[in-house]
Amino acid sequence: MRLTEDQIRAFNEDGYLFIPNQFTRAEVGVLKRELPGIFAQDRKENVREKDGKTVRTTFAAHTFNEAFRRLGRHPRMVGPVMQLVDGPVYMHQYKINAKAAFDGDVWQWHQDYGTWARDDLMPTTRAMNIAVFLDDVTEFNGALMFIPKSHKRGVLEAGHDTVTTSYPLWTLDHATVAQLVKEGGLVAPKGPAGSMLMFHCNLVHASPGNLSPWDRTIVYLSLCHVENHIRQFKRPEWIAHRDFAPIVPLVDDCLLDLAREAAE
Amino acid sequence: MRLTEDQIRAFNEDGYLFIPNQFTRAEVGVLKRELPGIFAQDRKENVREKDGKTVRTTFAAHTFNEAFRRLGRHPRMVGPVMQLVDGPVYMHQYKINAKAAFDGDVWQWHQDYGTWARDDLMPTTRAMNIAVFLDDVTEFNGALMFIPKSHKRGVLEAGHDTVTTSYPLWTLDHATVAQLVKEGGLVAPKGPAGSMLMFHCNLVHASPGNLSPWDRTIVYLSLCHVENHIRQFKRPEWIAHRDFAPIVPLVDDCLLDLAREAAE
Repeated sequence: MRLTEDQIRAFNEDGYLFIPNQFTRAEVGVLKRELPGIFAQDRKENVREKDGKTVRTTFAAHTFNEAFRRLGRHPRMVGPVMQLVDGPVYMHQYKINAKAAFDGDVWQWHQDYGTWARDDLMPTTRAMNIAVFLDDVTEFNGALMFIPKSHKRGVLEAGHDTVTTSYPLWTLDHATVAQLVKEGGLVAPKGPAGSMLMFHCNLVHASPGNLSPWDRTIVYLSLCHVENHIRQFKRPEWIAHRDFAPIVPLVDDCLLDLAREAAE
Repeated sequence: MRLTEDQIRAFNEDGYLFIPNQFTRAEVGVLKRELPGIFAQDRKENVREKDGKTVRTTFAAHTFNEAFRRLGRHPRMVGPVMQLVDGPVYMHQYKINAKAAFDGDVWQWHQDYGTWARDDLMPTTRAMNIAVFLDDVTEFNGALMFIPKSHKRGVLEAGHDTVTTSYPLWTLDHATVAQLVKEGGLVAPKGPAGSMLMFHCNLVHASPGNLSPWDRTIVYLSLCHVENHIRQFKRPEWIAHRDFAPIVPLVDDCLLDLAREAAE
């Protein structure tokens, strides 16, 4: 799978690209059936909401779950990023963001690269987020909001918010967000499970809580050019990884293969 | 202004009715320009968010502000409710719900009549909410979510939630909400400032927080048939009113008249 010239132009201009139905229902099913087992585990990689129960984020599932390991090497995820950063990539961060029905809390306005630069000393923005929806994302269950074109502003000043949610985050102030929205507007890409979303690591984004009875699970791969690896190891290795070896993509059928193997 | 037979049928079937552009931009302007002055007042009717600063709800603005007094007697608000409850109405509750940009917090899943029955001993559901948007309501700034047809279920069991937000509320449990949504789905009426929304006092609803840089101010009139007035005075009179005299609607131009008077 190669991005077209138009897609690359749109990404560079707006800072994101939305590709509906990049994965089939069957492929999503292979991943979804693993979630209850993963969330039920009592392990440090499961960061919980303020209620101390609901899983907010599972880090590094590619290191302990076979289906998510394969997703982390899937050619439809890794290929487009290798194309955009023009070279081999390693896995900087791997997150399953649950935003569970009723209990999923907000993510405040932030840039991902702001954290990678400040906490991890990642040298440049030669890195990117690519996400796949494991649930239908609608207007009701906490869709991600992007400020188009905000990635062109570099790393913006931010404060370290340790109180709003259970997970600390470098967040932008209201005046900055209001000004960026005045310039670029606001979008919230929605679509069926299996849809894919790529966005620039400096694109300003946030997401509201989920009051609906529908989960809104999204898996995020943060992929970084191997030469652009982080220089500081302040955060735990299961949050900011230390294995800088280039990812070798698997075959396109790797998720369905797993289902077939399990059935046999 | 009279509701049509089709509108009445839709209201009875789904529990709500949305009428875009019921008020003009000029009429909305007459009300909006009063808001900063009202929110700046240090008075008990201004209930603030958990931050202790941002106004969450202003109660009873019709008792101390002329523009909102007129809105509370506006024929386009009071008329349709008199038609639906088939008789004269009094003002049971009057709220300006600010849901301010960035800081506006959630309203959990609830039925309004649940509170009116439990706290105020209002005898029957011969009462209704009618709301007008003072800002454009979009997918980004915390639109109200309704569960269609849920008003047919009577008063549902609820718990008194005094911790989630700054305002205590009788809220429904997750299993109940999930079941109701399975049956009736979920809708979130959106539209320009000046749009009007009526809903049955047993219709289950909620609204997410507002992370956007756009305010989402909505004014709610809770109008009750005069014979159905409350029997218990547990809550303060500026929350659950005690004046059961029938409202006499003003003329249709009453808001623009005020602007003209002010200009002269």
